[in-house]
Amino acid sequence: MVPKLTVLSHFSIETVRLVIGENKLTNMTIIQVGCNLTYSVIKPTNFLFNVAAARTEHQRICEESFQLIPEISFEASSVEDNQVYRLYVEPCDLQLQYFATVDLHPEFYDRSEINETWYSQLPLDVLPYLNPSRYCESDRLSHFALRMFGNVQPGFSRVNAICDWINNNLDYQAGSTGESTSACDVLIERVGVCRDYAHLAIALCRALCIPARYISGYAVALQPPDFHGFFEAYLGSRWYLFDATRMAPVEGFVRIGTGRDAADASFATIIGEATLTYMAVWAEQTTPNQISNESLRQSAVSTNQ
Amino acid sequence: MVPKLTVLSHFSIETVRLVIGENKLTNMTIIQVGCNLTYSVIKPTNFLFNVAAARTEHQRICEESFQLIPEISFEASSVEDNQVYRLYVEPCDLQLQYFATVDLHPEFYDRSEINETWYSQLPLDVLPYLNPSRYCESDRLSHFALRMFGNVQPGFSRVNAICDWINNNLDYQAGSTGESTSACDVLIERVGVCRDYAHLAIALCRALCIPARYISGYAVALQPPDFHGFFEAYLGSRWYLFDATRMAPVEGFVRIGTGRDAADASFATIIGEATLTYMAVWAEQTTPNQISNESLRQSAVSTNQ
Amino acid sequence: MVPKLTVLSHFSIETVRLVIGENKLTNMTIIQVGCNLTYSVIKPTNFLFNVAAARTEHQRICEESFQLIPEISFEASSVEDNQVYRLYVEPCDLQLQYFATVDLHPEFYDRSEINETWYSQLPLDVLPYLNPSRYCESDRLSHFALRMFGNVQPGFSRVNAICDWINNNLDYQAGSTGESTSACDVLIERVGVCRDYAHLAIALCRALCIPARYISGYAVALQPPDFHGFFEAYLGSRWYLFDATRMAPVEGFVRIGTGRDAADASFATIIGEATLTYMAVWAEQTTPNQISNESLRQSAVSTNQ
Amino acid sequence: MVPKLTVLSHFSIETVRLVIGENKLTNMTIIQVGCNLTYSVIKPTNFLFNVAAARTEHQRICEESFQLIPEISFEASSVEDNQVYRLYVEPCDLQLQYFATVDLHPEFYDRSEINETWYSQLPLDVLPYLNPSRYCESDRLSHFALRMFGNVQPGFSRVNAICDWINNNLDYQAGSTGESTSACDVLIERVGVCRDYAHLAIALCRALCIPARYISGYAVALQPPDFHGFFEAYLGSRWYLFDATRMAPVEGFVRIGTGRDAADASFATIIGEATLTYMAVWAEQTTPNQISNESLRQSAVSTNQ
Repeated sequence: MVPKLTVLSHFSIETVRLVIGENKLTNMTIIQVGCNLTYSVIKPTNFLFNVAAARTEHQRICEESFQLIPEISFEASSVEDNQVYRLYVEPCDLQLQYFATVDLHPEFYDRSEINETWYSQLPLDVLPYLNPSRYCESDRLSHFALRMFGNVQPGFSRVNAICDWINNNLDYQAGSTGESTSACDVLIERVGVCRDYAHLAIALCRALCIPARYISGYAVALQPPDFHGFFEAYLGSRWYLFDATRMAPVEGFVRIGTGRDAADASFATIIGEATLTYMAVWAEQTTPNQISNESLRQSAVSTNQ
Repeated sequence: MVPKLTVLSHFSIETVRLVIGENKLTNMTIIQVGCNLTYSVIKPTNFLFNVAAARTEHQRICEESFQLIPEISFEASSVEDNQVYRLYVEPCDLQLQYFATVDLHPEFYDRSEINETWYSQLPLDVLPYLNPSRYCESDRLSHFALRMFGNVQPGFSRVNAICDWINNNLDYQAGSTGESTSACDVLIERVGVCRDYAHLAIALCRALCIPARYISGYAVALQPPDFHGFFEAYLGSRWYLFDATRMAPVEGFVRIGTGRDAADASFATIIGEATLTYMAVWAEQTTPNQISNESLRQSAVSTNQ
Repeated sequence: MVPKLTVLSHFSIETVRLVIGENKLTNMTIIQVGCNLTYSVIKPTNFLFNVAAARTEHQRICEESFQLIPEISFEASSVEDNQVYRLYVEPCDLQLQYFATVDLHPEFYDRSEINETWYSQLPLDVLPYLNPSRYCESDRLSHFALRMFGNVQPGFSRVNAICDWINNNLDYQAGSTGESTSACDVLIERVGVCRDYAHLAIALCRALCIPARYISGYAVALQPPDFHGFFEAYLGSRWYLFDATRMAPVEGFVRIGTGRDAADASFATIIGEATLTYMAVWAEQTTPNQISNESLRQSAVSTNQ
Repeated sequence: MVPKLTVLSHFSIETVRLVIGENKLTNMTIIQVGCNLTYSVIKPTNFLFNVAAARTEHQRICEESFQLIPEISFEASSVEDNQVYRLYVEPCDLQLQYFATVDLHPEFYDRSEINETWYSQLPLDVLPYLNPSRYCESDRLSHFALRMFGNVQPGFSRVNAICDWINNNLDYQAGSTGESTSACDVLIERVGVCRDYAHLAIALCRALCIPARYISGYAVALQPPDFHGFFEAYLGSRWYLFDATRMAPVEGFVRIGTGRDAADASFATIIGEATLTYMAVWAEQTTPNQISNESLRQSAVSTNQ
């Protein structure tokens, strides 16, 4: 599934873990990400592709390529950190090839020092991530969240406890859920995929007054390779990465989109009629010191303020 | 709230616990039940009242009275064990007074000897109680039920474990739910009243292939006094009584209606427009040896085959 | 898909439309129905098959055969009119062959003379069919039903108007819905299959205080051939057949199961793990005067009191 | 309910309808808006009040006052156009008094010239308003929306047709819905309040690929006076105001909050425990030429680009 990208092999690779200030560590990691998508386009169709690695201060894009076969003109534009591609296609077989080399340097923090932020202290632009959204009906889960996690130590540990609970109480099953499946559905049916795990975690965080949002991305070491859905919770004064599926180390996550829930971070928005006939996704670390679950268990990881 | 019923005071009261066969104990208990309901009838309205104690081999009706003020003609008829009253009322203030003296003799069994019945051995007339119903969407809960209770010792103990779990994970809160609240809603919102507790328990039983059904009734020692909703599970070769609310001893339950869920056992079906303005319900044991939770903890109770 | 059943070819075929009393016509029609089902049984599994034509006063079974390959012992038993087969199977490829020759004689009535029955006049055993059920949440649809059909002429014409509306406002799309799809889901999503059409119609009838129930059956002239789901509404003093899909004439419907909704009338209940790998269903009229949509448009059809 | 605000009486009042360019008219209208809210605060509680008129190029705030009794310190801050007040309160009776004099100048456009915008032409910052949100599950309504409005003339007329349909098919009933009621719920139950009307309209617009968002505000001539919920649809190159309730003229709407749905525009967010015990809301035009439904029927109104 993962195509060879030999053109990238001559990149210099460097990963150094540096101490920055007292509680903050960083890592520089070169990750190659990309995807090949093929669509059978049946009617004239508009596409919005949201597959490019975001440009943030923690993600530097060293090299990047976006190609369409046949060669169709497209509009590349940015919404905040996010690079999207918009195009209009007549019926055809459309192939998209994207790859990027990303210089990722997440920050690492001591979990035990990360507290929740009082509502009165939350930045105003963070507040919308307390609101219920399409797939995260936090308004219905407040009683449940308080019952289950109300007495858990607030802070990083509480969000971690939510992830533990979800991990222990859901079964990961490819194809078990669909486009309209929400956190409440998952809580009833107890099966899902990464996006469902994230939605339930986000909903429970919000129900406890912890801002939380959905991230789509590439994930090193994810098996089988695919686009990944995970989440960020706002604690202390920044957003920390979490993944309730525990399927890949968060420090190897390359952010694509950020939103209220998966409704905001679809890798392909299709207005028209087209069927995905082939998909390959990859994320490979090309540095010697592998991203490992070891560090995941010890540090909190942030790639956003 | 509980009106004095002096006419009943001269009844002889007897409660004897007898050994019948090896594993079967019975109790004879005289219980006085009844209700006063007042409706403000706004438009011409049809009522179906389902408030009378059922006539079963375990419930003998010693005395009974059903009265309406003003005196309106009504039809009293039986559907199987169940006595219902149907009437048509022009706008007025309608008062219903029902009371009965019930000679209740539940059977008591050793819990440890009660097993689940293989699907292939279940009587055909029991099978509909495996089907999902309006308020018990067992079809959506199979994964959850198997995860939570799949490894619990089958039999009485498994249904008991379901009741324990519900009791520990829901908060009883009067007025928290409504007419359209289902088992799945309750599983999300984690608050409810007796009918919600019963619905969730029934749904989980059915999801595990244990037939279960809803019972409405009077309950001795229920505080505050009200109509009660509980359930029966079919184990071994009979229906056993359970109450996930644990608010009153099951051996003091006087059956009114039996059905798939509360949709089948409403104490008043109203076709028209009427508002309940007053309601008093009571169930009082008039025998010396009080029904106690002591015995509840030790025996399984059945009032049906 | 429809196997030749040459053994049946020597049956004498007769269809005569007779006048019985004033408003009542009947038809005698010989219909051959049957199905071939193949399952890949993965784990030890209990099956309950509900594929046999019901034995009613309007459906006489002339000849019938139920066979399993491999030859596995099964229990054949009746619940009221309904013949079911229950069996326990070890992992294997299980083939079921059922066929029957049914002498069907529906009754025909003048639509314009069929009225709704006052709640106070409904037989008690009909009342449960006013209650909401798993797939027919009539409790949520009362406002909608009154708005849409409250001013329609009561009686057969009102149920017919409901069928018209559903037929005009849903799209029939094989595979569009699933096991948990309910009337409310269908009202939102506006696509479905026969069972969804029936569920929505039943829910709307009940919301208008018209008893309604689900029928599974065989249907002459259904394209593509399959088990069919339709419904009965209780009007005047009997149950009348309706089909909101309008895909086949109701007078050619052979009843299998009768229930609150599809939860009660599944053609196969499977406790264990088995996958349907082949299915053929047929219903063929072997009489000269073909069942036609012509008569459907003119008469109400009943096969039940 | 509407307090006299005599201090405002010396403001000069002017309303002039001016021609600006060819198709664009504007109006200058002085509107006095405000609210009095009293809460019984039971536990220490954080409040976020979103009751202030937004500062936009179409809404100039001439005078404004925000007061709390008792005098509690609060933080006033802006998120884009929006002024919010955040405070922390110990148990007490909290009274909020807000009033503002707003110089409102909506733009008026010829409805017949307003078209929908191709997906490929929509500004990127408008795209999130195509996504489903908590109360606007547009993903479930695409089939319905296409069936009902797919053949309606695109543009202003199509959004207007959606409003017409909602207005004709819902009943406005105070108190009929709750905090968790969504567009799909409303489509089933067919009753609601202004926010429900807006949610359904927004969901249907999005399902047709018309960006739509929720507006909370004050509304001149709304009876009974209350906060109002309405919506904007993005057509041509700007946001136009719509109100499916048709309870007040859109040209008299004073914007408070703008969001995906009501989850983003609650007039009071309460973290803690407090009960609203008194509420008065007002919006009064103080200019001679009254805002009238007359003009509403003839022009499209925009207060945002």
